[in-house]
Amino acid sequence: MPPTVATTDLLIIGAGPAGLMAACWASQYPNMTTRIIDKRPGRTPTGHADGLQSRSLEILESYGMVDAILQKGVQHAEMCYWGRNKCTGGIERQKRSRARMGDGERYHMVLLNQGLVEQTFLDSLRGKGVVKVEYGVRAETLVLKGEEEDEYPVEVGVRRVGADGASGAGDDWEVIRARYIIGCDGAHSWTREQLKVPVRVCSGDSTWGVVDIVPISDFPDIRQSCAIHSGENGSIMTAPRENRLVRFYTYPKGDGKLNVEGRDQSDVSLDDLVESIRNAMRPYQLTYKHCDWWSIYKIGQRLVETYRPHGRVFLAGDAAHTHSPKAGQGMNVSMQDTYNLVWKLGSVIAGAAAPSILDTYDLERWPVGEELLRLDTELVEAYEQDVTSTEGVERVRGKYVDFMTGMGIAYGPSALISGNSSDPSVARNMKVGMRLASYPVVAQADGVCSQLAGRFASNGAWRLLVFPGDLRQSHTQSSLESFADKFNKQPHLSRWQKTPGLGRCYPLETILVHSSPRTSINLLDLPDTFHPFDEAWGRDYSRVFSDDGSDGGDLGHVYDGYGIQEMGCLVLCRPDQHVAWIGSLEEVEALEEFFARISP
Amino acid sequence: MPPTVATTDLLIIGAGPAGLMAACWASQYPNMTTRIIDKRPGRTPTGHADGLQSRSLEILESYGMVDAILQKGVQHAEMCYWGRNKCTGGIERQKRSRARMGDGERYHMVLLNQGLVEQTFLDSLRGKGVVKVEYGVRAETLVLKGEEEDEYPVEVGVRRVGADGASGAGDDWEVIRARYIIGCDGAHSWTREQLKVPVRVCSGDSTWGVVDIVPISDFPDIRQSCAIHSGENGSIMTAPRENRLVRFYTYPKGDGKLNVEGRDQSDVSLDDLVESIRNAMRPYQLTYKHCDWWSIYKIGQRLVETYRPHGRVFLAGDAAHTHSPKAGQGMNVSMQDTYNLVWKLGSVIAGAAAPSILDTYDLERWPVGEELLRLDTELVEAYEQDVTSTEGVERVRGKYVDFMTGMGIAYGPSALISGNSSDPSVARNMKVGMRLASYPVVAQADGVCSQLAGRFASNGAWRLLVFPGDLRQSHTQSSLESFADKFNKQPHLSRWQKTPGLGRCYPLETILVHSSPRTSINLLDLPDTFHPFDEAWGRDYSRVFSDDGSDGGDLGHVYDGYGIQEMGCLVLCRPDQHVAWIGSLEEVEALEEFFARISP
Repeated sequence: MPPTVATTDLLIIGAGPAGLMAACWASQYPNMTTRIIDKRPGRTPTGHADGLQSRSLEILESYGMVDAILQKGVQHAEMCYWGRNKCTGGIERQKRSRARMGDGERYHMVLLNQGLVEQTFLDSLRGKGVVKVEYGVRAETLVLKGEEEDEYPVEVGVRRVGADGASGAGDDWEVIRARYIIGCDGAHSWTREQLKVPVRVCSGDSTWGVVDIVPISDFPDIRQSCAIHSGENGSIMTAPRENRLVRFYTYPKGDGKLNVEGRDQSDVSLDDLVESIRNAMRPYQLTYKHCDWWSIYKIGQRLVETYRPHGRVFLAGDAAHTHSPKAGQGMNVSMQDTYNLVWKLGSVIAGAAAPSILDTYDLERWPVGEELLRLDTELVEAYEQDVTSTEGVERVRGKYVDFMTGMGIAYGPSALISGNSSDPSVARNMKVGMRLASYPVVAQADGVCSQLAGRFASNGAWRLLVFPGDLRQSHTQSSLESFADKFNKQPHLSRWQKTPGLGRCYPLETILVHSSPRTSINLLDLPDTFHPFDEAWGRDYSRVFSDDGSDGGDLGHVYDGYGIQEMGCLVLCRPDQHVAWIGSLEEVEALEEFFARISP
Repeated sequence: MPPTVATTDLLIIGAGPAGLMAACWASQYPNMTTRIIDKRPGRTPTGHADGLQSRSLEILESYGMVDAILQKGVQHAEMCYWGRNKCTGGIERQKRSRARMGDGERYHMVLLNQGLVEQTFLDSLRGKGVVKVEYGVRAETLVLKGEEEDEYPVEVGVRRVGADGASGAGDDWEVIRARYIIGCDGAHSWTREQLKVPVRVCSGDSTWGVVDIVPISDFPDIRQSCAIHSGENGSIMTAPRENRLVRFYTYPKGDGKLNVEGRDQSDVSLDDLVESIRNAMRPYQLTYKHCDWWSIYKIGQRLVETYRPHGRVFLAGDAAHTHSPKAGQGMNVSMQDTYNLVWKLGSVIAGAAAPSILDTYDLERWPVGEELLRLDTELVEAYEQDVTSTEGVERVRGKYVDFMTGMGIAYGPSALISGNSSDPSVARNMKVGMRLASYPVVAQADGVCSQLAGRFASNGAWRLLVFPGDLRQSHTQSSLESFADKFNKQPHLSRWQKTPGLGRCYPLETILVHSSPRTSINLLDLPDTFHPFDEAWGRDYSRVFSDDGSDGGDLGHVYDGYGIQEMGCLVLCRPDQHVAWIGSLEEVEALEEFFARISP
């Protein structure tokens, strides 16, 4: 019997965090057909990755998913560093380091097992009803055709497999013809292997021991993240988790008597691991009754030479980069890979943007992978160099803190990131290429106070933020009017503003944040572009905000926070909230050129 | 064929907000079997009640449901009062009134149609999987037997009905034998009729017109709550809602030319209603394309003489009280009725508490119904007395603001509310009978900052809050130790602390909030009762908090907020977060007596 043949715009291979994030983004583009397959019978049950950094939480918020994560997870509030006391030989606390949030930042790191993170994605996907994960489906063949000869040039043969990985009958064979595929299939990526993508190996495999248990212990910092260097008794890392669990890591050359290096789950038992952890925690006690998950696994520092080994094939997550679990980065960088990619695919497939924007994926994400390995190398070295003190570890963590939270990631110049903003001084604290910080604002229409970021849902829209200054001044008002007038006359800007159907929104929204007292302004007196009218749905009242400090709270800090000068400015935010361009209210032509360049 | 006969501890009749809240509470008591029936084919589709007040949101939070509501609903931030301009004859804004949150309060009112509120309850019930709403089931017969002769003295005959309300075949007949029933079956309550419960009629029926539309209008406050008195053109109320909807109410003797009084949906059209609203809003325009829901309905001010017409039968929600929609109270007081009741039923059925505590339901909730009608009467009068100005309305709203938010509701002395706290000055800003205010605290074990109220999940537990003061002082430490020592020796307190199985927790938890810097204290040095040990699950690290202001933010205000004096105090909170008793750290015997009195 011939196999079933189906076509899809996008095929995602692998439903771990990177794949699920891709599916979630794809759900926002109803014009793009998407399938996601995973050879496993279902989601990760528990264990595995467990750290969600600040930027990842912002992204989850932009999908309306962060509350579920915050409810289930444990917040990381403080890190404690423990070293060896030279007199007693036991460990002692050397330092407490409180997790601080940067200006415009909103989340502390949250710890939650990967299974529950995946479940939150699955719940969200089910609620949207657009993309459904196909578990128990294994990709087995890959054929790439010329882009000219075939509209769906990527042919993936897949087979439905049982829970044991065994293939079923012959009629379980399907050929999926796709425009694009994303390989999110992990450290041993099948997709990567098919294309024989060169991999840069920065270190050989190291063996890690990890356990998630409910500890019974008198260690005073058992509910905090700790780095513990006990000298000859080995060194460990701990992190508090949901349901009274605590995660413990032992690491190569640092686990004292056990020395897991080169061994695996077949010759090291859970009790061996706990014994090794117990040794490192002396003089404190440690036992357990309940273990949620444990593993011994090998991992090396590796980075693919390109995230886009073929025009229609992308790699993301562990398929592109592997490293140690030391900095709690794995799930985060992986999810952020596909968060960077899929809105670009959605725009291209909807015909709104030129396919050339897809070049920016490798351009933007490969350097992040490279930086990740640099951090990891330094952190592993710091752990190995001094087994009795955690000073080195603390120094490396301090150096990379903005990278680790995701706040410091800045994409370089490209078609989607302007390299030559005319005057960077119009918004001194804002950097082109970085994600936009958030501050509380007051909505003009209803007086509700909320974070500006709450207006940046991941729905495919670009946002042009207009900061005119204080509208009670006549020159400010006239400069706003002249902006609006010019803005509406630009052909590309008009098209991007008025073409619905890309995602669930218009592809370009204008948002106004003025610095006048809210009650001094009547929304309907502002230019139409800030309250556009729809025949059926009336006016959009959600586009105007005030940076009005007169209502107390934490209000009135937007202009200061961004460092916006008196002349005001325009800020263009991409669908992934990264700042693409900054200019003055007069530079509408430069904005028009930006959109002209990325239009098909 | 004889009918099916089933038994259940609790039968809830009606799955509106009161019934669903009852089901949600009942889900927390796995030892109590519960059924909930509703004759409708499914939940309220849309429209109907739409206001959730501050206290209701706190309650939803305690079930983990508030995030879903906040995401879907619209926050009420400001109320605008519009009256008639004597010169122009049109309306003009007379006042803006910003919604303020009281000290220790955390939510602004949220507006969301009843259908989505019910859906949130249904989602939560499905997630718990304990109680499932049976739609399309109508109660038809009620037989009450003596409590001595039958363990299940309430017999309700129910019939499965089609979507049109028609009965099905004879085998759809079931007899449900229950220990207790709650009639949450609305203004025309079948349960109330069966028992011929006397009803106090405070006013005859008035007719209300209500529409939920997407308005197309130049009215500047269209996205805010407004009271509009236009003089001869009638008066209306407005409220912003989800999905660009706005709710408009017209009311009797205030709707200008239309005069809906005594009329119903058969002789007044939607366009008539909108025409009437348009008149009241002159000189502003109003049209619409989309209508979500509209209705004309009659309602009078009524209150049952008792909320417990029979030892085993309770009434709640509209079955107990009806009134105008003016103050946005309906859904709130109704949900709070069953929130007051079901934990008492759960404790009695689990054998933890004496059945006599059920007397407190009528004792506590009937006065709330009475106060509700008083507010409603004054508000209706204020609307009627001056049709050109809203001053009177504003005055009444100001007078009852604490009642309307739910913050001001204080239950009087009873078996569950102590009437004679020895020295009220130990916590000057706390009132026995009121719900406990919330402030941010720092968790001792992990340093996470959160609202103290986050620790008060609705799971059936009583909480004894221990406020010893600054534990760096030796007399404070010894007074805490002496408290713990005495506390553990009391037979009733020990039983309540150690009997699992009531709800999902122990029935009495001790929680410590000290005022020392967090890092000066080691949790394990505190008495065992604040970190109890469980063989399988280890220590409970979640019971100790610090009122430590040194970490900035809004911290360090708990002791001040509650007005706790240097000697410290004990505060007993019921499972519904109302303060049951306040005393000094020495008054452990008084606490023991409290629990002795309510024990079976």
